[in-house]
Amino acid sequence: MIQPLQVIINGQLIAEKEATLGIDDLSIVRGYGIFDYFKTVENRPVFLEDNLDRFFHSAELMDLPIHYSREELKRQIQLLMEVNNIPESGIKLLLTGGYSVDSYSIAAPNLIITQQPLQRNLGQEKQGMKLITYNYHRPFGTVKSIDYVMGIQALKKARTVGADDVLYAQEGLLSECPRANIFLITKTGTLLTPGKDVLAGITRKYIIEIAKTHLDVEIRDVTLEDMKNAAEAFISSTTKNITPILSIDDTVYGANPGPITMRLQQMLEPIVFGRKVDLRC
Amino acid sequence: MIQPLQVIINGQLIAEKEATLGIDDLSIVRGYGIFDYFKTVENRPVFLEDNLDRFFHSAELMDLPIHYSREELKRQIQLLMEVNNIPESGIKLLLTGGYSVDSYSIAAPNLIITQQPLQRNLGQEKQGMKLITYNYHRPFGTVKSIDYVMGIQALKKARTVGADDVLYAQEGLLSECPRANIFLITKTGTLLTPGKDVLAGITRKYIIEIAKTHLDVEIRDVTLEDMKNAAEAFISSTTKNITPILSIDDTVYGANPGPITMRLQQMLEPIVFGRKVDLRC
Repeated sequence: MIQPLQVIINGQLIAEKEATLGIDDLSIVRGYGIFDYFKTVENRPVFLEDNLDRFFHSAELMDLPIHYSREELKRQIQLLMEVNNIPESGIKLLLTGGYSVDSYSIAAPNLIITQQPLQRNLGQEKQGMKLITYNYHRPFGTVKSIDYVMGIQALKKARTVGADDVLYAQEGLLSECPRANIFLITKTGTLLTPGKDVLAGITRKYIIEIAKTHLDVEIRDVTLEDMKNAAEAFISSTTKNITPILSIDDTVYGANPGPITMRLQQMLEPIVFGRKVDLRC
Repeated sequence: MIQPLQVIINGQLIAEKEATLGIDDLSIVRGYGIFDYFKTVENRPVFLEDNLDRFFHSAELMDLPIHYSREELKRQIQLLMEVNNIPESGIKLLLTGGYSVDSYSIAAPNLIITQQPLQRNLGQEKQGMKLITYNYHRPFGTVKSIDYVMGIQALKKARTVGADDVLYAQEGLLSECPRANIFLITKTGTLLTPGKDVLAGITRKYIIEIAKTHLDVEIRDVTLEDMKNAAEAFISSTTKNITPILSIDDTVYGANPGPITMRLQQMLEPIVFGRKVDLRC
């Protein structure tokens, strides 16, 4: 018999299909909450400490107290992994604004931990994606907020013009994709990525570390001009790893991923997956 | 015996304390949903048709199909009013992104109708409030989205400087408060209110109608200069009716509500409440 998928709400294990929040939770009435997300590879949580750092950072900035210690959170995650037994998975920690007495004030947050099977999209990582720029800057850029209203609406626009997603850009500066960080590689081989008021992606962090041993890396304001003049581009996230970008708006980088992007993919592979995967087309 | 408060979820009556949404609803995981809100006065819904118009408008713009006809929604509202029997109340229609298969795509929306006792804050309507400007413009301005992350954070900032709430202003233009529309009255007695990309407040609509019979009314871009030069200011909403503004940032309009504001309050009163209430201090 297959066990039903379990989740943990406020420390209690419960079957996912029975897991609910009361309708006065501040996520439902005011879209207020934060989360974080990491994956497991062969039952090993990947970059868990980094994700917990960011989870506590987001919670603090949005005034959401976490009523568990870091060690207790890790115990809950471990328990969930044991009962669900999904070796390749994504685990989400979601912290909402809680049951608000006046539908506006932050209350005692509800903490939900979920786990879902996660299948790698190797095709997309090999073939790449197309982006369009979208005039927006995410407020509270360093916070992993649940607020994806713009991301969901923008994706619709991207698809109507044959693109796969959007890249937020405002006042001439790139910031990030709704669910990924952006990198450019200049014609002289320098790696560029925006540094201010964007999500501190964990995959981004390790890409910067490995790139520094081989390339010049500049973490700074990245302009639309940089974008137009770049030789290569890619995005990074927990689910997308390094995914090449073939074009942004009318700027075409090539029909295939660029060579430095592919080299970085190869270098990132053992750090994330602990073994080599052939990413060549 | 006092009956427990009832709500309606997807057409079904249920006790409010048992009313829940599954944790994969798009409001919880991505802050995605819209709502509308009207009050009842002596068991009479106030401006219901206007609110339903705006509810359908918000839903359409955010790609959320409403699986009930307007008449069926009215029947559900009527039923809820009968079982709860709260003559002076606020009724909310909340439409979420639904149970998303991939935690990102819009699914069949969940529709929640709630009713709560609503007590008028006459003290605030008589004495007025203080605002500070806050650099933000609400995306999808004509949509009554559940996205109040900025409003909740901004309120915290307002309170630290002794103000009651914020007024969004960006690039020199006022737009709205997080939960109310803004009006200025110039020194020459013209009523000003922003017209572009702000919520089409229902109370705002009736204020404009009554003001037009007595004042020049300009619905146009309203600048920070207009704000500094104005003689009076007030905000409007379903719960706040016309609430005078005594100051915005360093601009002080007076220690007491202005005379035109008070006159408009008196004129609005019978339209909203069907009878006169003495609003004089």
